[in-house]
Amino acid sequence: MEHVISVLVENKFGVLAHIAGMFSGRGFNIDSLAVGETEDPSVSRMTIVVHGDDRVVEQILKQLNRQVNVIKAVDLSQETHIERELVLLKIATTAKNRREVIEIADIFRSKVVDVQHGSLTIEAVGSGAKIAALIDLLKPYGILELARTGRIAVARG
Amino acid sequence: MEHVISVLVENKFGVLAHIAGMFSGRGFNIDSLAVGETEDPSVSRMTIVVHGDDRVVEQILKQLNRQVNVIKAVDLSQETHIERELVLLKIATTAKNRREVIEIADIFRSKVVDVQHGSLTIEAVGSGAKIAALIDLLKPYGILELARTGRIAVARG
Repeated sequence: MEHVISVLVENKFGVLAHIAGMFSGRGFNIDSLAVGETEDPSVSRMTIVVHGDDRVVEQILKQLNRQVNVIKAVDLSQETHIERELVLLKIATTAKNRREVIEIADIFRSKVVDVQHGSLTIEAVGSGAKIAALIDLLKPYGILELARTGRIAVARG
Repeated sequence: MEHVISVLVENKFGVLAHIAGMFSGRGFNIDSLAVGETEDPSVSRMTIVVHGDDRVVEQILKQLNRQVNVIKAVDLSQETHIERELVLLKIATTAKNRREVIEIADIFRSKVVDVQHGSLTIEAVGSGAKIAALIDLLKPYGILELARTGRIAVARG
């Protein structure tokens, strides 16, 4: 099963690598990871998406919550939550097909953030499924560069 | 100086923790880190933002480019590039001040993605500075939850 794990940690060096290591040490591959400061610069939030056995994830959560540098770790996939991801996509375009690419971007309510002679850069936000659908539609034009943030999530209500 | 490092890596377990460890091992604190799959599911892109000595960062880049699991590592802060970050913000609101919070969200072209009796959740995309300004304006209402992705970047042109 997929797990979306949100971990509040002290913003100290080594904490991030240590926590990422706790997953890989148990043979888990991290599908995505996003880390940023919170409103308190001494605290960061990590959002980790992994696929794996429920019981093992539960064990890792317990282990996380015992770490000195971890303030709180929760599995958001256990409750209703809002998930979003951001992607920057640089697509190969010509004067001829540029319009087509912009139309696809519009349908996905994404934004053109840069235009060059041979390329167009698009910023898109959505669920993982929406981003995947957009990438799939743009692939035939040629993806020159792609950066995605990995998912972040907050509990609903 | 600030460095925005983009690393294409093989999507294998342990790689992420190993690379994060290369920075913390040299005493660098990672300001933000975003990792997501590329159009090729066997390849992930990590975007790492660090502050630090230019020469040490250059050494780390060289070291990264020598790793078997690293396809390419570049310092995007050395070239013109586009940077974006995504944040989800859950703000404490009452029936009285909800309008005010929505107005602030509108000014920042951010989107209300959830409304509850006592809260509003906002999705915003922008440069690090824009996100910081938004957080600063919303702080007085009370931030209940905040998740940010960390920055991603692509080279311009």
